Amino acid sequence: MSGRKEFRDLATPEEAHATIADLDIGGGTEMVALAEANGCVLAERVDAGLDVPGFDRSALDGYALRARETFGASEGDPTAFTVVGTVETGEPPAVDIESGEAVEIATGAVMPDDADAMVPVEQTDERKDELLVRTAVTPGENVMVAGADIAAGERALGPGTRLTAREVGLLSALGADELPVRAKPRVGIVSTGDELVRPGDELDSGRGQIYDVNSYATATGVREAGGEPVMYPHAGDDTEEMERVLREAAAECDLVLSSGSTSASAVDVIHRVIDEQGELLLHGVAIKPGKPMLVGRLEEAAYVGLPGYPVSALSIFRTFVAPAIRRAAGQSEPETATVEGRMASHERHEEGRRRLVPVGLVVNGDGEVLVYPVDKGSGATTSLVEADGIVEMPADVNYLDAGEAVTVQLFSPDVRPPTLFGVGEDDPLLSRLLDRLDRPRYLHQGSRGGQRQLRDGVTDIGVSSIADAEVGTDIGGWTREWGLVVPDGNPDGVEGVADLVDDDLRFVNRPTESGLRTSLSNALADLADERDIERHDLVDAIDGFEFTVQAHESPARRVLAGDGDAGLGLRATAAKLGCGFVPVGSERVRVLANPERTDKPGVEELETELTDIDSLLDEIPGYSR
Amino acid sequence: MSGRKEFRDLATPEEAHATIADLDIGGGTEMVALAEANGCVLAERVDAGLDVPGFDRSALDGYALRARETFGASEGDPTAFTVVGTVETGEPPAVDIESGEAVEIATGAVMPDDADAMVPVEQTDERKDELLVRTAVTPGENVMVAGADIAAGERALGPGTRLTAREVGLLSALGADELPVRAKPRVGIVSTGDELVRPGDELDSGRGQIYDVNSYATATGVREAGGEPVMYPHAGDDTEEMERVLREAAAECDLVLSSGSTSASAVDVIHRVIDEQGELLLHGVAIKPGKPMLVGRLEEAAYVGLPGYPVSALSIFRTFVAPAIRRAAGQSEPETATVEGRMASHERHEEGRRRLVPVGLVVNGDGEVLVYPVDKGSGATTSLVEADGIVEMPADVNYLDAGEAVTVQLFSPDVRPPTLFGVGEDDPLLSRLLDRLDRPRYLHQGSRGGQRQLRDGVTDIGVSSIADAEVGTDIGGWTREWGLVVPDGNPDGVEGVADLVDDDLRFVNRPTESGLRTSLSNALADLADERDIERHDLVDAIDGFEFTVQAHESPARRVLAGDGDAGLGLRATAAKLGCGFVPVGSERVRVLANPERTDKPGVEELETELTDIDSLLDEIPGYSR
Repeated sequence: MSGRKEFRDLATPEEAHATIADLDIGGGTEMVALAEANGCVLAERVDAGLDVPGFDRSALDGYALRARETFGASEGDPTAFTVVGTVETGEPPAVDIESGEAVEIATGAVMPDDADAMVPVEQTDERKDELLVRTAVTPGENVMVAGADIAAGERALGPGTRLTAREVGLLSALGADELPVRAKPRVGIVSTGDELVRPGDELDSGRGQIYDVNSYATATGVREAGGEPVMYPHAGDDTEEMERVLREAAAECDLVLSSGSTSASAVDVIHRVIDEQGELLLHGVAIKPGKPMLVGRLEEAAYVGLPGYPVSALSIFRTFVAPAIRRAAGQSEPETATVEGRMASHERHEEGRRRLVPVGLVVNGDGEVLVYPVDKGSGATTSLVEADGIVEMPADVNYLDAGEAVTVQLFSPDVRPPTLFGVGEDDPLLSRLLDRLDRPRYLHQGSRGGQRQLRDGVTDIGVSSIADAEVGTDIGGWTREWGLVVPDGNPDGVEGVADLVDDDLRFVNRPTESGLRTSLSNALADLADERDIERHDLVDAIDGFEFTVQAHESPARRVLAGDGDAGLGLRATAAKLGCGFVPVGSERVRVLANPERTDKPGVEELETELTDIDSLLDEIPGYSR
Repeated sequence: MSGRKEFRDLATPEEAHATIADLDIGGGTEMVALAEANGCVLAERVDAGLDVPGFDRSALDGYALRARETFGASEGDPTAFTVVGTVETGEPPAVDIESGEAVEIATGAVMPDDADAMVPVEQTDERKDELLVRTAVTPGENVMVAGADIAAGERALGPGTRLTAREVGLLSALGADELPVRAKPRVGIVSTGDELVRPGDELDSGRGQIYDVNSYATATGVREAGGEPVMYPHAGDDTEEMERVLREAAAECDLVLSSGSTSASAVDVIHRVIDEQGELLLHGVAIKPGKPMLVGRLEEAAYVGLPGYPVSALSIFRTFVAPAIRRAAGQSEPETATVEGRMASHERHEEGRRRLVPVGLVVNGDGEVLVYPVDKGSGATTSLVEADGIVEMPADVNYLDAGEAVTVQLFSPDVRPPTLFGVGEDDPLLSRLLDRLDRPRYLHQGSRGGQRQLRDGVTDIGVSSIADAEVGTDIGGWTREWGLVVPDGNPDGVEGVADLVDDDLRFVNRPTESGLRTSLSNALADLADERDIERHDLVDAIDGFEFTVQAHESPARRVLAGDGDAGLGLRATAAKLGCGFVPVGSERVRVLANPERTDKPGVEELETELTDIDSLLDEIPGYSR
């Protein structure tokens, strides 16, 4: 630990910004072909190297002549000229003119030497061998003189200009086919940690492996910010390999980002390499999510260590790293798009650190933006896409009240609140229905979650299969067959819920939020009545009744994996996964609209689609009107 | 002409939009690697194929145990456990626990089978061989259960989702390494016309050749809109080659764009190929610029013929074609960014067609946006970059008054008015000075143009070398040596302006707007006084006095090309181009600020830079304080 800097306090976000801004991650200058220049930023001023046009150019089809010889000509009193030749576009003007002569000329063609103006064909007539000119023109009229657009030596575009179609047009006119542009900063992406597996490779969940989320997400963020991501092979927890990869990335890149493992050994290797070949400048930042951030230098490269949790990693990347990459790439900061809204529910925050709260947006019936916190824990990747932006809570604020006005920093200027926001039952027909809509957002929180959020006035719609709901306006629905999903061929000969009680079956249940769970409970209540016993005695006899799994297919998948003998589920799921199915009943899934938002376009669109679900009903086994 | 459709009337813009919208330019579905997916649009819904996490996962470092065995534990009255093993992240949990036992567990590691909660290390103590747990936890506490983030079978992302870093993160978590996305529409770019030369190739101005502006500019526009441009070899005016290229493009692309030649032969070939192998649907649209637009089908491909002039071509592309490409690519329409402003000058429009007037923006002293028309003719490529957006004038409006309120459609949402807007003298030191500023705009309209625009209150600054100007606030300047630029070695032995009058020299002049021209006029007036003759007699004796060229280097370049014996110019230009120089005098170039905008940040920035020009003065021959 000799020489290692001690960082007693977390850096403030301002200190973190300043530390990163001081690192040099500029990529220098490189030449780019004009055809590939879209989005690049000029590194140097471009002066015109030639006149545009390079010659005096006829602006129209007509006749080139000497302007002063048309003076006095008019519609009623034309002046006669002799046509002595023709100049086509793209040809040298092989004719001279003398007094009283004109030359037929095409748009864009070179003006003959002694002509100083041209008359459009519409203002002339031919009479025998003569050309009658019916208007007077001034010298230079209808002629674009050489260099009139831009002349050799003029400043065309300044350094820092971002090249779009318009600039590419001007550069084309100048004949530029290669341009000096700001090189994209090369950003090396190093991931460590034995538990991480690159997407596409086999995953062994039993060993606690998970897919590496940060590498590709960060690489995409780098590209969005104008950098060139360089992915390095995943280093696992092999410290030698980790060290080799870090050094290789430092040698090849302007900036090295590592993220991933929270394991102590990985952190130790990074610290050691930085101690030996660089400098650690900052360790930890007082912001949540994101505390475990490292900033330093690694040989000639800048280094930032991102937190391991995806939401934290991307939040730190966006807040601190992306602006530095954009600056180095010469890209302007995107307009910080913000939206004013009101909290749809309260948000508590107990720690004394500034906090970036991911939030979703929904427009209520009055067109007002409601803001709700999205927080499934920073280990959850779904919160990445379920949020629209960030509300910042200062370190000394620990409570946002429902109804409180807040400013949301959108993730990008083109983020819009979803056209439709729903919460409720997880259902395969609903999934397909949502595919027909433009940008809906739908969260699976079960029938009870859907009813609760609808009651609280947050969502546009709730979807529930619990029959006694008294919230919302029913705008349509369907019926689905539910029962017990069993292994293919029903080896245990399960016939109904009674077998769960009576036989030695491992059952897989759904949580109490789920509508299916309510249907099961009703069936069990009927059975208890029938047998004249207490319901809880019945339930106690079911092995696994308390073991609930997350989504509507999850019990069936457990059964399929051999981790259960019967699972609560749909005929549709059994058919999809090739399992056996024991029908128990049918339940109606109802789409309930927020009564104040029935004329919101997204709700109306869904209502229309709900009248047209016959093809979907045919597609899904066990579904009917 | 047999069978060719007749189009007697120009289509309305609405008809043109509808015709293009009816063409099918969709590119279908293709697979893309996750690492390359940035900006792509999902073609299909993505459901989770696995649980994330795939196992019950410890959320913190600490101890896994049975929750009910902690009930009653508190800071003051801890419960003791025996630690029976360790589970590291990325390892299978090779231990079972029984009553009274706990397992040390790392963040992210797999929970052992019989543990249902974990206690963070901070809430425990070790005592001898025992673990003291100082808090009660509930079942599931500090555990992320399998599928809690997203479970197998759940809808993860809908079709039409645009993939950014956040979506790439979620897809990584699902292990997706290839995704079905909307294929980019392939857009073939065909250019025709003998006069066009691709940038990078040699240009023969004497034959009236110009660089092909539209091909690369349109290709860039296609890429910006989410399409994949395919450039075809330039076809010249060879009708067979043109036909071959058109057919090849139609076979290979979803949409073919042609532009370029206005020559009748090219148009004829296009018409013939469309007649034979497709259908012409629209010919000409009632909008300016852009009338000569063709829309049709060419074999299986859609076809749009763009006008030849760059501003027209890009305007038609942006208005009609780009939205169709975006739709086909599944990209959302960019927010139509608009700005409200007032016309800085009037704009007349005589034709009865809807007109898109390119305009520039400048912020005045009150922070109000002034809007001025940018029109150098649609043949001018510089107007592409000198404009910030478009003001639409309906067909029945033929006049916009100065001061009138207008809405400007910005070329893109990130367009901002320049930080500094100046007009005036063209000067090499000024060019370098502008390089130091962030996004200035400076138009070369000579000293008189600079003074006029400043007087009219349009610009922030004017730059003038005409001494008697009484407009603006002088915020700095420099002195430059001017005279006659002659061939290297001064073969005619020119000694001063008198030689222009007395010797048989071909002179090349600058326009009356130029400050240099005023200095020359003053020198000639002195000579006339000296000789006691009329100034115009003196001027008449100068061969080429009325022949003026566009930019400050232009006379010198004419001399260099052998098209003149002496040109009006700067010592700096003679030195740069390796010409001889005959000094005549010095003139002061003054930067004049709009008195109402001296505290505008861009003006203040320039004023500061003006105090620091010594290094520039050293760099440029003939320049001094």
